[in-house]
Amino acid sequence: MAGTVDRRLQELGISLPSGPAPVANYVPYVVHGKLVFVSGQVPFVDGKLAFVGTVGSTLALEDGQAAARTCAINILAQVKAACGGDLDRVTQCVRLGGYVNATPEFRQHPQVVNGASDLMVAVFGDRGRHARFAVGAGSLPGGAAVEIEGIFEIA
Amino acid sequence: MAGTVDRRLQELGISLPSGPAPVANYVPYVVHGKLVFVSGQVPFVDGKLAFVGTVGSTLALEDGQAAARTCAINILAQVKAACGGDLDRVTQCVRLGGYVNATPEFRQHPQVVNGASDLMVAVFGDRGRHARFAVGAGSLPGGAAVEIEGIFEIA
Amino acid sequence: MAGTVDRRLQELGISLPSGPAPVANYVPYVVHGKLVFVSGQVPFVDGKLAFVGTVGSTLALEDGQAAARTCAINILAQVKAACGGDLDRVTQCVRLGGYVNATPEFRQHPQVVNGASDLMVAVFGDRGRHARFAVGAGSLPGGAAVEIEGIFEIA
Repeated sequence: MAGTVDRRLQELGISLPSGPAPVANYVPYVVHGKLVFVSGQVPFVDGKLAFVGTVGSTLALEDGQAAARTCAINILAQVKAACGGDLDRVTQCVRLGGYVNATPEFRQHPQVVNGASDLMVAVFGDRGRHARFAVGAGSLPGGAAVEIEGIFEIA
Repeated sequence: MAGTVDRRLQELGISLPSGPAPVANYVPYVVHGKLVFVSGQVPFVDGKLAFVGTVGSTLALEDGQAAARTCAINILAQVKAACGGDLDRVTQCVRLGGYVNATPEFRQHPQVVNGASDLMVAVFGDRGRHARFAVGAGSLPGGAAVEIEGIFEIA
Repeated sequence: MAGTVDRRLQELGISLPSGPAPVANYVPYVVHGKLVFVSGQVPFVDGKLAFVGTVGSTLALEDGQAAARTCAINILAQVKAACGGDLDRVTQCVRLGGYVNATPEFRQHPQVVNGASDLMVAVFGDRGRHARFAVGAGSLPGGAAVEIEGIFEIA
């Protein structure tokens, strides 16, 4: 039987991938007490980076937002694994940290990272409202447009 | 009756604003147990960014320090709200994360972020001594000179 | 009597320094409950930055990896102090956050930060497997090649 969050994901037309495997010697998440620390996720889709480039030059704001949303889907996949498959155990999205691969002149980082934040609220409702930071990175792994890490509270 | 920390803020001539509202779909802080996760704060004063530019080119070190101090004041405003108005409930400033909008050649990030760290110690004394990181961002929201996020412990 | 982790460090030929003192008004770590928040560490060796430069231009990938390993050694020194000298109290390396001073075109941040991640696994085994993010910084304190902060769980 699908849980409440799983049904919401279906309504949103989102099919979670299996969480992307780390590209190096670390793990996708660590659970400490009720907190899940999720490793930085880049916009992998089917094992390939779907958004490569610099927001403000080779990529538009909308591309950055779509990249952030894709990072968030991968975060959800990792959190689902951390919850043993049951996303209804998530009691709070505590914090998201967003890094945007942008030009020095770019100023709309909050709008980019909204691609992830809006998805959390769409999926979890009030439990999806999180603390956040959004900053510009000078560069990102594989040339990814966005990287997002997160901390979640689970029951 | 003003609390101990409120009196100290008065002595320092600091009047806390109401915490700036997030500029996107997230919340200014999330409380998990005794920890308060505060969203990244930029140097807003009366709803406008008071320090816009790049430290090391359009802004001097002293501007960066003042920007960091302003970020810290906004962090305190958010923490005060998280404490129901009573900053005496703060038992520890656990960690500050500082992002400085700087040129690639800039090297004095610690001195910039001291603008925030010094304020925490001035306000909270030993409870204000925190873990910290200070790094250079390639760009920041709205062209802000500095962005700082924080984790606090409250009783 | 040397502990298990101390013996492992000896086998690896690593002699931990006393934890580098912060270069500004903060502390090297803060303990909250069972969590240790370690301040951002740069590749100091005997009080001097051993790796200064930009990975992808003035520094090669291998230099970045060695810099990350040196940051990790300094993190271990701080964690040892937080544990009252007994690294066997570490139950989990929870998360590392890695910032690489790199060119805008650089893409191999994960490989750089592996210099730190590999050491954690070498020293702590499974308890060393952590969540992680690796991003490019636009600049770093003192021109350091890498800066890494960490969160550890201790008993």
